[in-house]
Amino acid sequence: MRAAVLRGGRMVYRDDVPDPVPGPGQVLVAVRSCGICGSDLHFAAHGDEVVAMTERVSAGAGGMDVDLGRDVFMGHEFSAEVLEAGPDTETHPAGTLVTSIPVVLSGKGVEPIVYSNSTIGGYAERMLLSAPLLLPVPNGLDFRHASLTEPMAVGLHAVNKSNIAPGETALVLGCGPIGIAIIAALAARGVESVVASDFSPKRRELATAMGAHRALDPAQGSPFDTVKPAVVFEAVGVPGIIDDVLLRARPGTRLVVAGVCMQPDTVHPFFAIAKEINVQFVLAYSPEEFADSLRALAEGDIDVTPLITGEVGLDGVGAAFDDLADPERHCKILVTP
Amino acid sequence: MRAAVLRGGRMVYRDDVPDPVPGPGQVLVAVRSCGICGSDLHFAAHGDEVVAMTERVSAGAGGMDVDLGRDVFMGHEFSAEVLEAGPDTETHPAGTLVTSIPVVLSGKGVEPIVYSNSTIGGYAERMLLSAPLLLPVPNGLDFRHASLTEPMAVGLHAVNKSNIAPGETALVLGCGPIGIAIIAALAARGVESVVASDFSPKRRELATAMGAHRALDPAQGSPFDTVKPAVVFEAVGVPGIIDDVLLRARPGTRLVVAGVCMQPDTVHPFFAIAKEINVQFVLAYSPEEFADSLRALAEGDIDVTPLITGEVGLDGVGAAFDDLADPERHCKILVTP
Repeated sequence: MRAAVLRGGRMVYRDDVPDPVPGPGQVLVAVRSCGICGSDLHFAAHGDEVVAMTERVSAGAGGMDVDLGRDVFMGHEFSAEVLEAGPDTETHPAGTLVTSIPVVLSGKGVEPIVYSNSTIGGYAERMLLSAPLLLPVPNGLDFRHASLTEPMAVGLHAVNKSNIAPGETALVLGCGPIGIAIIAALAARGVESVVASDFSPKRRELATAMGAHRALDPAQGSPFDTVKPAVVFEAVGVPGIIDDVLLRARPGTRLVVAGVCMQPDTVHPFFAIAKEINVQFVLAYSPEEFADSLRALAEGDIDVTPLITGEVGLDGVGAAFDDLADPERHCKILVTP
Repeated sequence: MRAAVLRGGRMVYRDDVPDPVPGPGQVLVAVRSCGICGSDLHFAAHGDEVVAMTERVSAGAGGMDVDLGRDVFMGHEFSAEVLEAGPDTETHPAGTLVTSIPVVLSGKGVEPIVYSNSTIGGYAERMLLSAPLLLPVPNGLDFRHASLTEPMAVGLHAVNKSNIAPGETALVLGCGPIGIAIIAALAARGVESVVASDFSPKRRELATAMGAHRALDPAQGSPFDTVKPAVVFEAVGVPGIIDDVLLRARPGTRLVVAGVCMQPDTVHPFFAIAKEINVQFVLAYSPEEFADSLRALAEGDIDVTPLITGEVGLDGVGAAFDDLADPERHCKILVTP
């Protein structure tokens, strides 16, 4: 079958990937749509660093079992159609549109569908999912939109972890897909003052379309000169941002760090101590939040139409990875095999 | 009157300080005991840095109005005896032993009693306090112990901010006065597993005396090899500690940063993101926590006897500042004018 795989830092098209065979509890599905995530771009460029850092932080307790010298399957934001269930497995009827948190259960345990030499992800014609984890897509939600359940769940989780109240002001730094997902979740939660910040005019426009009440250009001055947020969401993920927040935020600020900064970063603990700042680092979401995210899309609480800026086939994934570098052109590109 | 003042980085004895005169709402008190705080040692050695950093973090909204070229009054951990009230001011009878949060109200507003060219602190024979803020010392609590209400309130506040439950394991890194105050507050709260860590054998002994169930020597290996704490209290305040916690702590750890690190520090946000760590920076305490701290001392919930390792007069403050550098000899030295 066809797939796009990471090979030597580039996404390469293949038409000779063996079809996966569902085991007990597993379901073979046909991928309908898979979003390209910023973390995939980062992994393609700096996979060795990600593997090394993950190894370090897990301190021998597993790490990431990926050999970058071999082809790597990726793609964790997907919707798919049920094809057939494995042995002794009940599932939804063939043709049902589904999504799932990106893990698959097997005899080896829980395998993440993210970067793997063996577990096929959403940049492929077909993949395996686990019957108990399948969520049927309700309300006739478009399969393209359904594939964005995952990134929107990341935003929902960050907002849930912030415990923000509707009357509090939120400042979202960075309007890439994570920042936008946070803005959408804040708007859906009824937060009355959502302020976004991004250097890109296109991204600021998108932030407004997705629910931000104001969108500021940090080139025109620090957003903290304009707003006094109770909660700051960091969705940029480059060194220096956290310290700038610690310096400029008001006392008692809650900072939610959702941007994944892989490099060492310099901070002044004194700034944070003087203002009793709380920093909540966040990652991913719970299965309940994933289901909530799908429901929010299906019920129209969140409309992801403005996010989708491109659509490619499996042979276009390599070029799409390059194109995503330009924030003026793209936010989310979908791979529709 | 007599006082010890900071002059050119050293504590200097003076016997020619004019007696302060209480204004309306103020009370003249005779200092009975004043603890020497680690932040005073730091200010004596690096006052210019502290002033500059405070200026930077307050961004023009006040900062610290101290001229290091002139004598600086210090001493914010005190107990004192009421002498006389200012005009039109009701207060406790003369001779009442009191303490107070270290601020004084005046026509100029709220003035901290911490580092000042004009507001006299506890390293003096007499000082001014505010009548509405005075707390009489109950239960015949010794005036030496009462003067440690303030540092113990710092520990209580850190513990309150952690929201630790009795069944959770706490790890306290650093057993200087702040770490010890945290340990005492954890023990008073009934936390069942309090583990302390310090390079100094004397400090580990003190930690155990104050309520730690175990005291580890980090020279023998990371405390995280031995315990899996839910809450980590950082009470060391030197660069590198926070990142080491982020690297070694288990997922979901709450890190309370109570040690005041004035230098820039390097952290890996990725470590914290991968484990969704929460970092709460803390400073000081509320007036309620200060009163709770006094009550805990007066009711015998916390006994500070083991902390007090020395007592000097106002002419011994300079030498005491030097002596406190040795953790094997000293924890808390009291100045008893």
